[in-house]
Order: sequence, then C-alpha cells, then structure tokens
Amino acid sequence: MSNGKPKIVIVGGGFGGIKIGQLFAKENVEVTLIDRHNFHLFQPLLYQVSTSVLETGEIAYPIRSFFRNSPNVNLYMAKVQGVDQARNVVITNHGEIPYDYLVLAAGATTNFFGMKSVEEHAFGMKTLQEAVHIRNHVIHEFERAEKPYRTPEDRKKRMTFVVVGGGPTGVEEAGAIAELIAIQKKEFHLLDFNDVSIKLIEATPRLLPMLPEDLQQHTVKVLQKKGIEVMLNTQVVDYDGDILTLKSGVKIPTTTVIWAAGVRAVDMMKNCGGECARDGRIWVEENLMVRGAVNGNVFAIGDCAAFMHGDMKRPLPTVAPVATQQAKVAHKNIMKLIKGDTNLEKFVYKDLGAMATIGRGEAVVGSPKKMTGFMAWCAWMVVHLIRLAGFYTNMTVAFKWALNFLTSARLGRIITNISLDPNK
Amino acid sequence: MSNGKPKIVIVGGGFGGIKIGQLFAKENVEVTLIDRHNFHLFQPLLYQVSTSVLETGEIAYPIRSFFRNSPNVNLYMAKVQGVDQARNVVITNHGEIPYDYLVLAAGATTNFFGMKSVEEHAFGMKTLQEAVHIRNHVIHEFERAEKPYRTPEDRKKRMTFVVVGGGPTGVEEAGAIAELIAIQKKEFHLLDFNDVSIKLIEATPRLLPMLPEDLQQHTVKVLQKKGIEVMLNTQVVDYDGDILTLKSGVKIPTTTVIWAAGVRAVDMMKNCGGECARDGRIWVEENLMVRGAVNGNVFAIGDCAAFMHGDMKRPLPTVAPVATQQAKVAHKNIMKLIKGDTNLEKFVYKDLGAMATIGRGEAVVGSPKKMTGFMAWCAWMVVHLIRLAGFYTNMTVAFKWALNFLTSARLGRIITNISLDPNK
Repeated sequence: MSNGKPKIVIVGGGFGGIKIGQLFAKENVEVTLIDRHNFHLFQPLLYQVSTSVLETGEIAYPIRSFFRNSPNVNLYMAKVQGVDQARNVVITNHGEIPYDYLVLAAGATTNFFGMKSVEEHAFGMKTLQEAVHIRNHVIHEFERAEKPYRTPEDRKKRMTFVVVGGGPTGVEEAGAIAELIAIQKKEFHLLDFNDVSIKLIEATPRLLPMLPEDLQQHTVKVLQKKGIEVMLNTQVVDYDGDILTLKSGVKIPTTTVIWAAGVRAVDMMKNCGGECARDGRIWVEENLMVRGAVNGNVFAIGDCAAFMHGDMKRPLPTVAPVATQQAKVAHKNIMKLIKGDTNLEKFVYKDLGAMATIGRGEAVVGSPKKMTGFMAWCAWMVVHLIRLAGFYTNMTVAFKWALNFLTSARLGRIITNISLDPNK
Repeated sequence: MSNGKPKIVIVGGGFGGIKIGQLFAKENVEVTLIDRHNFHLFQPLLYQVSTSVLETGEIAYPIRSFFRNSPNVNLYMAKVQGVDQARNVVITNHGEIPYDYLVLAAGATTNFFGMKSVEEHAFGMKTLQEAVHIRNHVIHEFERAEKPYRTPEDRKKRMTFVVVGGGPTGVEEAGAIAELIAIQKKEFHLLDFNDVSIKLIEATPRLLPMLPEDLQQHTVKVLQKKGIEVMLNTQVVDYDGDILTLKSGVKIPTTTVIWAAGVRAVDMMKNCGGECARDGRIWVEENLMVRGAVNGNVFAIGDCAAFMHGDMKRPLPTVAPVATQQAKVAHKNIMKLIKGDTNLEKFVYKDLGAMATIGRGEAVVGSPKKMTGFMAWCAWMVVHLIRLAGFYTNMTVAFKWALNFLTSARLGRIITNISLDPNK
C-alpha cells in the first residue's frame, strides 16, 4: 500500500467503472482507473452518432472530467492485457499496475458467434470509431450510388442497408437510418430513392424480447411504416461484403451490414485468472468477487461479469443499470474488506424496465407503465439526458434533440475518412 | 450542351465554389460542383476543432445541403486531377466531366516551403482531418507525459507545443491551445504543469501583418499574458519529430509542431492548362479568366487564382472575402458569355479589413474601427456566425460559444485515433 492508503485499481471506464470510481473517490483510498480510451462512452446513444444526430464529443466524455475534484482518482490510459492475481498486478501495454483491490469492469464487445466472414465485413456497433465508420460509410454509399457509371444492380446493392439484431440497438439503428435516408433523399437530385431498401433481421420470432408482446408488435408496425422490412425468424450465415447469405439460402446483395445481434465479454477477460462463461464473462460469486480469486481481492461487475440471476438461472442483461447497481455492492464489499469485515453483501438485481426509441417522436416503454408514441419518446429522452455525464453535455444534447425534432436537420452528415487513393 | 442548357462545372466547394454555385442555381444552367469531400469546410474556425471548442459537424456542412432546393445543382464527389482545356473536360478519379464553362475554385494547401522534414513531421492546419489529428495528438501527449516511466526530458518535450506562423491562424491556434491546457491542468493530478511551454514562432518582425502596428503589439502582450512565448524574427529550418531546429542553430525539443506559416495552391492546379505563379496559383486576367484559356471558357477564383492587386502589384490575400467577391464577378462574366456579350467585367477587390481572436473574450479588429478586448471578440463572433452555413449550425455554434464562455467547458477532449497496436 503506497502512502498507507489501500490502492484500488479499476479496469474500464464504462458505466460500472465510472460509478465505482466515483464511490471510491470519497473514501480514503488511492484509485487508478485504467482504460484504453481517455473517454467514457455513453453507448446507448451510439446509434445517434452513427446516423449523424449527435457528434462524438456529445456521447464521449473525458474520464478525467468525472474526477476533476478527486485528486485520489487518476486515469491510466493503457490497454489491459491480463491480471496476475498471485502478484496482485494488472498487466498493460504500458507496464504493470499493482493493486490491493481490483475491480474488473471491462465491458463487452460485439459477438459475431464465430462467423469470421461477418466479423470481417459487417460493422460492429460498440465503439465510437465503429459508429463514425458507419456514418461515413452510409453517407458515402449514396455518393457512390449516384455516380453515372454504376450498373442498376450495383446501385441497388449500395442502397440496401441491413441491420442484424432485434434488440434496442438494432431497432434504434434501423429507425434512425430510415430517418437519415429521408433527409438524404432531399439532397440527391439524380438518385432514384425507390432503390432504397432497409432491412432489420432478427433470428428469433420477436423484436425487443424484454418488452411485453403488444409493444413488440407495435414496434414492428412502426418500423414497417418507416419503410423498414422486418425479417423475423431469420438467421444470417455468411457475408462477404457484397452478398449477405441467410440460413434459408436467400441471398441479399448489400454493401452495408450493421451487426447488433449480440455481445460477449472482451477477450482479455480470459487472462484475468478466473473462469469464463461461454460468452467470455468471468464467473463471480453472489458478492461479486471473481470465483476462485486467489487473494480474495478481485471483483468483477457489469458486462464482463457472469452472474446468475437469482432463481431464474440466466445471465443478467448487458445494460447500464446492472453495472451501476453492481458497482455499489462491489464498492461496499471492498470497503468492508479494507475494514477487516468479511461478511460481504450479496448482489440482488433490481430490474428498472426497458425502453427503446424507434425514431423521432416514437418510443416504447415497458415499465413502470406501458407507453408508446410521443409520451414514451419524451420519457426515453428524459431518462437518457439524466444519465448523460455533465451539465454541459446535457444542455448540448437536449438542444440538439430539440432542433432535430423541430427541423429534422442533421448536422454532421459528413464523410471524414476519405481515402486519397485515386482508385477508391 | 446537354438538354440545351449550358453546363457549368465548378471545381471546389470552399467559399468561392459554394458562392458561385448559389449564384448559378438561380440561372437556367446545369451545374456540377466537384469536390473530393462531401462537405464545405468553414476553415476560419478550424482552430476551434483542433482545440476541442467545436465539433467537426459544426464547421463542416454537407455541400448538397446548400443546393437542397436547386435541382439544377449537383455534387460530384471526386478528386480532380486536371483539366483538358482543348476537349473541355475535367479529369477526375471517377471519370471525365465535360463542361461548357469551368470555374476553378480549388483552394489552397499548406506551404512547407520545400522543407521535407517539416512537411513529414509537423501538423498542417488546412483540413478537417488535420484539425482532428491535432486535437487527438495534443490531448494524447498529456496522457503520455503522465506515464511514470518517462524521463524528465521526455516529459518536457511532450509538453512543449510550438505553433509556427504569426498570421490569424497561428495566433488563434496558440491562444486556443493555451486555454485548452488550462482546462487539462485541472484534470491531471500527477503532472507538473510547470513543464508546459507554448511557443509561437514567426519569421518576420510582426504578428498579424494585415493589422495596424499598435494592434500587433497588443496581440503580443495578450499572448504573453496567456503564457505563450512569442518568438519573432525566428526561422525554422528543420524538424525531425523530436527536435525543431531554428536558423539561429537553437534546438527546441518538442513532439508538437503546428505549421500555419503559409499556403500555396493545390498541386492539381499545374495540370489545368494555365500558367502558375511561384505559389502554385494559376494566373488569371483582370476579368478572372485563366490566362491563355484556349476556348475562353475557364475562370479561376479564390486561393487558387493568381490575381495582381491593382497598382500595388501583390497577390491578393487567401481569405474568404476575396473568393466570394470573385465568385460574383466570374458568375457575371460567364452569364455574359452565355448571352454572347464579350465585354467582361473587371474584378476590383474591396478589402473588408481583418480580425483575429486571441482567446476567450479577446480579439483584435482592424476596421472599420480599431477594437480590442471583449467588444472586438463579440464583433468577431457575430461576423463568423453570420457567415456560417445554415440556421441550425448558427444556433449550435452560438450555443456552444455561450456555454464555453460561461463555463470554460470544452466538450470533446477525446482521443479518437487510438492505435490498438500494443506497442504504441
């Protein structure tokens, strides 16, 4: 323990990592938060960056800003490669970081379920870079499609946009793409927008599985009204960048496949000295300590932790409330251990319900009360604004949403990754 | 002439290209605007993106949005490689575009005055990508400097920021970096900010040469008060990425050199069938027609055109008002030619004066009245807001400036180009 204070290391600056960092900031401990980025990403609004509603800086907030007034919390920007529990050190690409107590809050990445071709050619939807790539690509495809030398088939392929995954991310992305394209339509005088096709593919029989069935059906209807083809019970087996192949054998020519069909823990979790579930999440006890932690001082929370949900015996959803609720319990338990109390608290998940937007002025909310339409959309906005980091961000995003609602304008429909290779 | 209407081709979507496009939008002509980007860049505010005041989408506006209600104006996104005047075609990396009348408004690029080492290692300040690179790099250097394994020399080198060029861009960039660093200071609890050094280097004896001498001296004082070392009469001869070498032999260890010391026309101008000046600008007659245009139908305006300034016999400054004023005359002259009138108008430059911000609440304005301080800053903001494209952009930027002024907050101090190479 340097300067006598217990040294807490947190891996990951997502919802769980920031929350537990804020709790430890008030304690007499030294905290090092490690993240490969210098920012916390508000992932629920990533789809808005990918469709030009918001800018990167509005959903990515410097981690250090959370701890501006907490001199005992410091960021260490590095990529974590693993943990040596025997020696109590985190191994990073910028050296080893010793800890007295470790909190793994490393989050999740896209799960392509072993389909290498899809992983290579489809867009993930988990990082800021991916969201910007999607934005650049979708807008660029319209520019490419308008070129006079395209064949009708080529043009159609470039104007076919497929989103895979019927969870909130997939539904929100498909809805937002439909609206983005409606704006594009006004600005491409030479392009026939009858060639545009937007498809939402889901392997199971339903969208938004966490919501009641009538809201699921409502969602399908709203999406269809926006011109989106909703394909349920549909499985993807291959994608080569030009042709998306379904399990049924049907082939869809498309240059854009956005993969929002599943997540798994980041690869590094398997190097943390614990045992991992099939989706890569590290097993934790009911008190959130990593199962089999050799020195009894390693905890895991959020998307990277495998915790069975009470009697239901299914893993917890990979959502922000799980991570922040677990942060509170992990913080409490580490403080107990610091004080020599080994009677640790058990984590119990309190489900706050689910919601999703389907587009401008449309959302579905499952609880505390079922809501659809404009009121549900307002509720969705309020919940997300409250959770966004910082007054300045709140104001800016609220301002942009208001302008976007009133004018349908979308700033930032710009392509920023132009290759200067004259052949592209 | 396709469908009977004269075909106007405009090369470049900067201030000149957009302005002349808007003028032709109201005429009975077909217009194709060619640009390698899909956006118009508001270059005077580029320094605000490079220092996290504004987001990319707030100074980059889709070119097509200007012509949403003008079906006779279309964007052709491509990189222009040259012009075959004999055949009346523009050659691009996406094929040839025929024209009846051509307007070259291709703009300028950074002039490194032949210093290859500087070109390779310093940051230019002309493109959106460069501004984002500067932002990422400057913020990243603080993260790197804080790493415990740095030597004091290495740390100091990474916290030395050099801006070369005492024109408005260099002055504004240096001032904005000083303010950005003041914010960073609050968030790096382990870093000694006495190691920070910001230098503004200018080869001539004065900053902002277009302003009266008392304002130049005022500018130096304000910059010095911000902690910036102003080095006049100082010439750079070499930069290897670690050491900046001056003509005097002095060596400055620094990992950040931002080059705002000069511009020249884009390379492609030499393939346009005209004769180019030493700075690459194509010579134009007083009526803005390219000197020696074989078919008498090629004009050039703005930063890419070499026009002698009346009796003074010096090239016009590379600023937006020159481009937009020339756009009006070139439009008028092409319309005359279309109507068979060869009595073309001569261009006369009306100097609207110059201004520059030195930071939050500080600016210098040369005319119509000399101003400094807060009032000058307000004047600067109004002038720039008026010129920004679109109501939505105006509102957003005004909003951000107000918040920035009131709270010193800077959204978007994020590093978006993280290499996943574990060795970096």
